Amino acid sequence: MPSSPIRKLAPLANAAKAQGVKVYHLNIGQPDLPTPRKGLDALKHVTRTTLEYSPSEGYPGLREKLCGYYEKFGIKLSPEEIIVTTGGSEAILLSFMACLDPGDEIIMVEPGYANYISFAKTAGIRVRTVTSTIENGFALPPVEAFEEVITPATRAILLCNPSNPTGYVYTAEELLKIKEIVLRHDLYLFSDEVYREFIYNGEPYKSALTLGMDENVVMIDSVSKRYSECGIRIGMVVTRNKKVHDTVMKFCQARLSPPLLGQIVAEASIEGVEDYLKECHAEYKARRDFFIEGLNRIPGVVSPMPQGAFYTVASLPVEDAEDFCRWLLTDFRLDGETVMMAPAAGFYSNPALGRNQVRMAYVLKIEDLKRCLLLLEAALEEYAKKG
Amino acid sequence: MPSSPIRKLAPLANAAKAQGVKVYHLNIGQPDLPTPRKGLDALKHVTRTTLEYSPSEGYPGLREKLCGYYEKFGIKLSPEEIIVTTGGSEAILLSFMACLDPGDEIIMVEPGYANYISFAKTAGIRVRTVTSTIENGFALPPVEAFEEVITPATRAILLCNPSNPTGYVYTAEELLKIKEIVLRHDLYLFSDEVYREFIYNGEPYKSALTLGMDENVVMIDSVSKRYSECGIRIGMVVTRNKKVHDTVMKFCQARLSPPLLGQIVAEASIEGVEDYLKECHAEYKARRDFFIEGLNRIPGVVSPMPQGAFYTVASLPVEDAEDFCRWLLTDFRLDGETVMMAPAAGFYSNPALGRNQVRMAYVLKIEDLKRCLLLLEAALEEYAKKG
Repeated sequence: MPSSPIRKLAPLANAAKAQGVKVYHLNIGQPDLPTPRKGLDALKHVTRTTLEYSPSEGYPGLREKLCGYYEKFGIKLSPEEIIVTTGGSEAILLSFMACLDPGDEIIMVEPGYANYISFAKTAGIRVRTVTSTIENGFALPPVEAFEEVITPATRAILLCNPSNPTGYVYTAEELLKIKEIVLRHDLYLFSDEVYREFIYNGEPYKSALTLGMDENVVMIDSVSKRYSECGIRIGMVVTRNKKVHDTVMKFCQARLSPPLLGQIVAEASIEGVEDYLKECHAEYKARRDFFIEGLNRIPGVVSPMPQGAFYTVASLPVEDAEDFCRWLLTDFRLDGETVMMAPAAGFYSNPALGRNQVRMAYVLKIEDLKRCLLLLEAALEEYAKKG
Repeated sequence: MPSSPIRKLAPLANAAKAQGVKVYHLNIGQPDLPTPRKGLDALKHVTRTTLEYSPSEGYPGLREKLCGYYEKFGIKLSPEEIIVTTGGSEAILLSFMACLDPGDEIIMVEPGYANYISFAKTAGIRVRTVTSTIENGFALPPVEAFEEVITPATRAILLCNPSNPTGYVYTAEELLKIKEIVLRHDLYLFSDEVYREFIYNGEPYKSALTLGMDENVVMIDSVSKRYSECGIRIGMVVTRNKKVHDTVMKFCQARLSPPLLGQIVAEASIEGVEDYLKECHAEYKARRDFFIEGLNRIPGVVSPMPQGAFYTVASLPVEDAEDFCRWLLTDFRLDGETVMMAPAAGFYSNPALGRNQVRMAYVLKIEDLKRCLLLLEAALEEYAKKG
């Protein structure tokens, strides 16, 4: 079981904080934007006196509201096609467990969300990767790259769209290529779409559920990022494949139920939040524009312009980004402050890749991002000098 | 993956309810007692405006309060020995994953909590069982029975004490026998102690963490039952074994964090609830006395007197209790009402066992339990007639 690259340096950060150092967290996708008022207010109005188990598949009211939400993206669903989970994390793990047997293979794009690999290990699944490169802006590798790693044991492809950690948004053309591979080899397509609200290229969002291959698609979703509700742990598995649905449900029954209180907040957050979502979108876009431009101004730092989500993978003028990230927490201080980033090597399965890269989440206010850029530039200079 | 015996008949129950039938739920351990007022009030006073991720191991405040709670049972712990999980369910799964490899064997007592077997399957672990019998009041099988099923692949024993589904409470003598086996074969002891507040035999509670074998014990706990907070999904893994702790933490980091709102409620529920716990204890004891006596008065029904938890496994004068349970939901009505129970066969791994038994949770008001007894007696009579 690998350590999470996002969280494994947390003890060093805690030690720095204990010394009174202010640590800016670019390492984790924990938005600082407020949760919708309606969601927070729902907590004040909980009238039930026993906080009981919810149905294993989640409350019908929440699943009905989600249908309305998805319809805005051209996805027609019934509540029976949605299973509420304990965050997107559980949605991924249970989808793996339901669709794949130990020893089966899954293809992922690297760099990819590190915990996918943890969940695959948990499920006993072998991960094969196709590599997207920073030089190419982390675009989908060509179809041939997928064909090359397909074996008789391959059962699935996983896409994160928009991508964590790169912010890449797949084009309609790329998605059709994926469809072709999926159908040709009769694979599952796990489509993690939790960042769909945050796309900055003006293109309409295209869900895997609109690709016309209902039996193959399992969509992973979560309210964590879109409503700044990471802590309530509400995600979902969405699939029109009845057999997959029923198998996921068996696992859901074993773990009894998703969090009750989170469901109450999530349900209250879905409707009447158009303005809220617009504001969040504008804020993240402004942060992206400011931060990515600033990053590329730092000598030796290169970041593609992410088209979605709120992350970027950037290369730094260092040999070992993990060592640099550790040093930032243990040694570097500027006016009592430092910055925390996730070494990107943990997002690759090939240990030779991404060693000079970091993943950063631009989930801080612009003035804080400004300070982060300043700290990063000063740190790189000092780190270079120390040799 | 087996279906949950507790929840698999839920669609039939829903269909009955859709016809306007009132269904009494004896199938699930969902207490009807209220959550402590302090826990509910904590929700009204949530002032944070972003519902963010909590630490992967849970909030320090909650873990500190839990230390105070355990101390009352003679268990001295530091917050670093407690990891907060998404219910006892996740605590079990992660403990299995952290301590055992696929192919390893674990010994459980049957009848046992059905989901243990689901979690073992999820982790790729082989389950071996020793059988406790209704004739013997579901006491711990003799040491020889354990020795018989131990193989070179055996790595752990799991005990649920007090037991779900039988309500049996292990004696100090039985626990010492378990200790002997655990140490002789260097096994882990997973000790599920979520029902410790509900013991009716007057004996002081003895946790596995007081047996003097710290490296071997992983204690599973949950606030679900003791504070009637099943829905908030807050459990915990408690161990003094540092290596196990650190491995569980890796899995915890992958799933990011336990539910934030549940932690707020749980933390507020721990202190100053002595009277609440006393009232719950008295209420369950009264229900037990009333319900078990009533069960044994029904011709052909036999239930031992459970000493703890709020379940019993009873044998019925039927050949196939699952068929009877289904029929109760699909056909039997008395004044528009029926009763739902969990077929006990799902709590045994040997398919020949428990076929005429059901698990019942006495988590309803006495007047409802009275009605359940009446419905059950009438149903058994009608079922016998129909042949």
